[in-house]
Amino acid sequence: MPADALVTELTDALAAVPLIDPHSHIDPLKPVAKSLDDILGYHYYTELAHSAGMGRDPLDPAVPARDRVREIVRHLDRFDNTAQYGWLVDIARTFLGFTGSRITPAHADRLFDAAAKTFGQAAWEQQVFRKTRLEKIFLTNEFDDPLRDFDTDRYVPCLRTDTLVFHLDRADTRDRLYKATGIRVGDAASLRKALAALFLHFTRKGAKACAISLPPDFEPAHYDDEFFYEQFRFHDGRDLAPGIFWLIAEFCREFKLPFDLMVGVNRRVYINGVYQGQDLFDQRTSLIQYRRVFNAFPEVTFPVSVLTSGQNQELVAYSWLFPNVVPLGHWWYSNVPAYIRQDLTERLQAVPKTKLVGYYSDAYKLEFVLPKYAMYRRVLAGVLADEYVRPGLLSEADAVALGTRLLRDNVKDVFKV
Amino acid sequence: MPADALVTELTDALAAVPLIDPHSHIDPLKPVAKSLDDILGYHYYTELAHSAGMGRDPLDPAVPARDRVREIVRHLDRFDNTAQYGWLVDIARTFLGFTGSRITPAHADRLFDAAAKTFGQAAWEQQVFRKTRLEKIFLTNEFDDPLRDFDTDRYVPCLRTDTLVFHLDRADTRDRLYKATGIRVGDAASLRKALAALFLHFTRKGAKACAISLPPDFEPAHYDDEFFYEQFRFHDGRDLAPGIFWLIAEFCREFKLPFDLMVGVNRRVYINGVYQGQDLFDQRTSLIQYRRVFNAFPEVTFPVSVLTSGQNQELVAYSWLFPNVVPLGHWWYSNVPAYIRQDLTERLQAVPKTKLVGYYSDAYKLEFVLPKYAMYRRVLAGVLADEYVRPGLLSEADAVALGTRLLRDNVKDVFKV
Amino acid sequence: MPADALVTELTDALAAVPLIDPHSHIDPLKPVAKSLDDILGYHYYTELAHSAGMGRDPLDPAVPARDRVREIVRHLDRFDNTAQYGWLVDIARTFLGFTGSRITPAHADRLFDAAAKTFGQAAWEQQVFRKTRLEKIFLTNEFDDPLRDFDTDRYVPCLRTDTLVFHLDRADTRDRLYKATGIRVGDAASLRKALAALFLHFTRKGAKACAISLPPDFEPAHYDDEFFYEQFRFHDGRDLAPGIFWLIAEFCREFKLPFDLMVGVNRRVYINGVYQGQDLFDQRTSLIQYRRVFNAFPEVTFPVSVLTSGQNQELVAYSWLFPNVVPLGHWWYSNVPAYIRQDLTERLQAVPKTKLVGYYSDAYKLEFVLPKYAMYRRVLAGVLADEYVRPGLLSEADAVALGTRLLRDNVKDVFKV
Repeated sequence: MPADALVTELTDALAAVPLIDPHSHIDPLKPVAKSLDDILGYHYYTELAHSAGMGRDPLDPAVPARDRVREIVRHLDRFDNTAQYGWLVDIARTFLGFTGSRITPAHADRLFDAAAKTFGQAAWEQQVFRKTRLEKIFLTNEFDDPLRDFDTDRYVPCLRTDTLVFHLDRADTRDRLYKATGIRVGDAASLRKALAALFLHFTRKGAKACAISLPPDFEPAHYDDEFFYEQFRFHDGRDLAPGIFWLIAEFCREFKLPFDLMVGVNRRVYINGVYQGQDLFDQRTSLIQYRRVFNAFPEVTFPVSVLTSGQNQELVAYSWLFPNVVPLGHWWYSNVPAYIRQDLTERLQAVPKTKLVGYYSDAYKLEFVLPKYAMYRRVLAGVLADEYVRPGLLSEADAVALGTRLLRDNVKDVFKV
Repeated sequence: MPADALVTELTDALAAVPLIDPHSHIDPLKPVAKSLDDILGYHYYTELAHSAGMGRDPLDPAVPARDRVREIVRHLDRFDNTAQYGWLVDIARTFLGFTGSRITPAHADRLFDAAAKTFGQAAWEQQVFRKTRLEKIFLTNEFDDPLRDFDTDRYVPCLRTDTLVFHLDRADTRDRLYKATGIRVGDAASLRKALAALFLHFTRKGAKACAISLPPDFEPAHYDDEFFYEQFRFHDGRDLAPGIFWLIAEFCREFKLPFDLMVGVNRRVYINGVYQGQDLFDQRTSLIQYRRVFNAFPEVTFPVSVLTSGQNQELVAYSWLFPNVVPLGHWWYSNVPAYIRQDLTERLQAVPKTKLVGYYSDAYKLEFVLPKYAMYRRVLAGVLADEYVRPGLLSEADAVALGTRLLRDNVKDVFKV
Repeated sequence: MPADALVTELTDALAAVPLIDPHSHIDPLKPVAKSLDDILGYHYYTELAHSAGMGRDPLDPAVPARDRVREIVRHLDRFDNTAQYGWLVDIARTFLGFTGSRITPAHADRLFDAAAKTFGQAAWEQQVFRKTRLEKIFLTNEFDDPLRDFDTDRYVPCLRTDTLVFHLDRADTRDRLYKATGIRVGDAASLRKALAALFLHFTRKGAKACAISLPPDFEPAHYDDEFFYEQFRFHDGRDLAPGIFWLIAEFCREFKLPFDLMVGVNRRVYINGVYQGQDLFDQRTSLIQYRRVFNAFPEVTFPVSVLTSGQNQELVAYSWLFPNVVPLGHWWYSNVPAYIRQDLTERLQAVPKTKLVGYYSDAYKLEFVLPKYAMYRRVLAGVLADEYVRPGLLSEADAVALGTRLLRDNVKDVFKV
């Protein structure tokens, strides 16, 4: 998408919008990078370097950070065509004083040192917030997170329920649940009590959402208490995932929390992949698997992220009909301009604009919020220019207002922040 | 797609082509709107308003039309980004003297009154035909439609067979069939007699097609008479849908009628949706389910509409090989510029041009034919410009001829009108 | 995609790159066309003509070539909108002195005669190589091909394994295998011996790849020797395909050959289709079916072609994670600009550039290499212009280098030629 004058103007205007990032994996106790190793250790770089030929040895924690960085940088020229590489250059230029357009092995040490110095500054965290125009960012907290020692207004808690839904058959999960709530779960009633305690804890700490990532073949279901009892008693609760999901939806209704569904990921497909570089998918999945949940919980808002662009038309159509289904950002394998452009255009042309939650960073370190949102804003500006401003449907100012709605206003409305 | 000079010229040239609309839901006895309520009552507006937060109470028939219109208009600014909203503005400007670009609550009463006056004019129906350059429009008639009291040359009958295929197990369907044909259906022989009577009735009245909409998991099959007998006798004909479809294809062959297949809709997914706003889909479907039918009936033309863009490559490939498979327009959830553009480009690059039936309105009221075709022509002009004229493959005149073929010539050839 | 100055410059620069075509069906003993009948007899033209209304009678070998050519040319104006027609015009202009832009029935005889004269020239084969800037081209050889009497440096052998995997239950396959290797296959041990003999024969003759085309529902599996024994003894080896595939992967590992997977074709869907115009597909397939193979054989490179654009995001993601998965060209129903453009953009934005094998001709006659690669280069130039040069990410020279990598460098690296 050529950056002509109109697109540049729209991009610039959108860059002024303060961000509320509705989904990330930031650790609020360690929100920023300490070294370039924290940047290049992001799974996008380790997995692309590995995919392009780097072994996994340099990723051993015993390897000194500087050596690991050198090794990853040495492989950068094998994937400098990718969008992910673009984020890195953006970080180097914005935060580290880098002025080039390609990062070569010759830059590795200088950038490593610059990062150490920059990231070690007093109030670096605040600087990142300011440079990113970031106002708030949502977390993804394990159910037994104490949610202590951070500003929950700025770092908004979100209850991640993957472990509860998919691993409650494991003793360590039930132990963690006991430690977090004081309740030993062994049937539906005790599970409800434990969930109530968790929801109470999270909402008291300002949680604004519940979230879960789901495999392609998952289908929630309502199970009766008798079935819970039998499963817990005779099978360690092995086949309860669909029913636990349903119970959690009931608590989302009671506690008025949106329930983010991240649909479509298969875990550990590439079993020798790098850390967080093992998950893939099966394109054969459908939102029809969620029809019962969408029908049964009209009071619960379900912001839905789909892993693949192939699911986007379902997301568009389900959001177009169901008042409680809301498209949420561009996730992981679809967080690439070619997919964002197509998926975003489809959503804008067919889903009420008040329901479009445009983007989230999914970041593990705050430094990534800026380059990821910058990429999104460029695509958004291009789509607004081509689909609304040039055909005469919207003025530039109205197009910026529409973009602002996707970037910020709808996050506030949907998640009530 | 920016409306540059070339695209504007092509759009204007295509706008001069008289239309034969090969698929609609027009009631020929009430073909035009009586009030703005008939326009805003179109399911696209009720479902988008509902999806964006409007309750279903205003849709109660007991609510006065003016109040309902006000309520829907009040929600328009929640989905004024959509293509469907664009049709409404086009109708207001073309037919109701509206000069703005946004319809606000302040306009509701004025537009309501203007519509009452305009739609109440003598010969309004003729005016719509003329302004739309509409020559003929196909209907979708229930099997027991008497097809009386309208001009079947202008309103071309089409035998809709959904009820026969999917609900012949219901007593009321069999009663209606008895009333329409005088035949009590209870086995294959009596069903054949009844179908023969229906096809005779429809073709005598000038029917030019048979049509059916199909769920994603449907697969037609040939059933022998013995199986029909047993199903009717012991199971009320419950599992006969695949076999009834096959019989209908046999009658399409005998009566030389194209059989329109609308592939991929699941009915009543959103069970509390507004009227006609409940149907969705499962992207996991394939035209391979129709291989036996396509092979068994080489004499029958199957114009195929797919509900999702994800099925378009199958439609392209099956039309590229099978002489009797023909791509038909852009249906429902794929009738949005982002999908039309991609699907149309794919079809133009790989399917013989003589087989491409470009578009149909699917309209319930004649007023919608104009804005829907206008949207299609803009996309078509853009694709012709980018893929044929600018690369030097076609002159402007030849590109208009290609567009005319899609808009009109192929409708005449495929449906023999 | 309008051919503006930048795109034209990039296209011209890429046209200078000498080609190594990594997949074709060239018969090295009859590599070039003898007459226009060999060009128009390509299944793309026979199937499009047939799809557009031509019967199969003219395709009877008893019909004189000139008459068959006339008949196909007579149908060309029904599909002169297609990309495939574009290849034909390109061939006529480049090789046959044709100066027009449309081939009409009036040209049939003149072109037929020009082709006879041109194709009959001394060293026509060398002329095609030179005009195409073709350096090497891969073949697709049946397992019992003697690989004699041709220059295996220029025509690179590739072991096609479809028959071994899917038809070893047939006596004639086992007889052919016996003739080729002297081994009677009846259990896993003898099958291993026979495969070893084939791999030895092929690699001694300079084979650079093993290849197979696979139906949408195929999933390879490891079978133990006992199961092979029982299947061979009691079931003629009927259900062994997944296990034979696995054995072949083992030999690819041992002999260090890449294993090309062509994923997604259903054979003989249109049973009355023209020769090679019968195969279609079911979009419901997933690369997850290959996870065990990708995990089990990290030493084997799997260049993967997908039949549909709907599988492209899986191919992108699996290539992004698995070091041994490599995207390979644009196959058959996806070898059309609308699909290439989207699929290529996605791959460029998310897969390491060192892993992208851009294109192959799939040609049956050498004359088709030129127009097919020309089509690809135009699309590639457009994508490089829009995604890299215009946004300021790459200079023109760097964009040409990236394109060259896809066209040539990666073929050399991946296939070690």
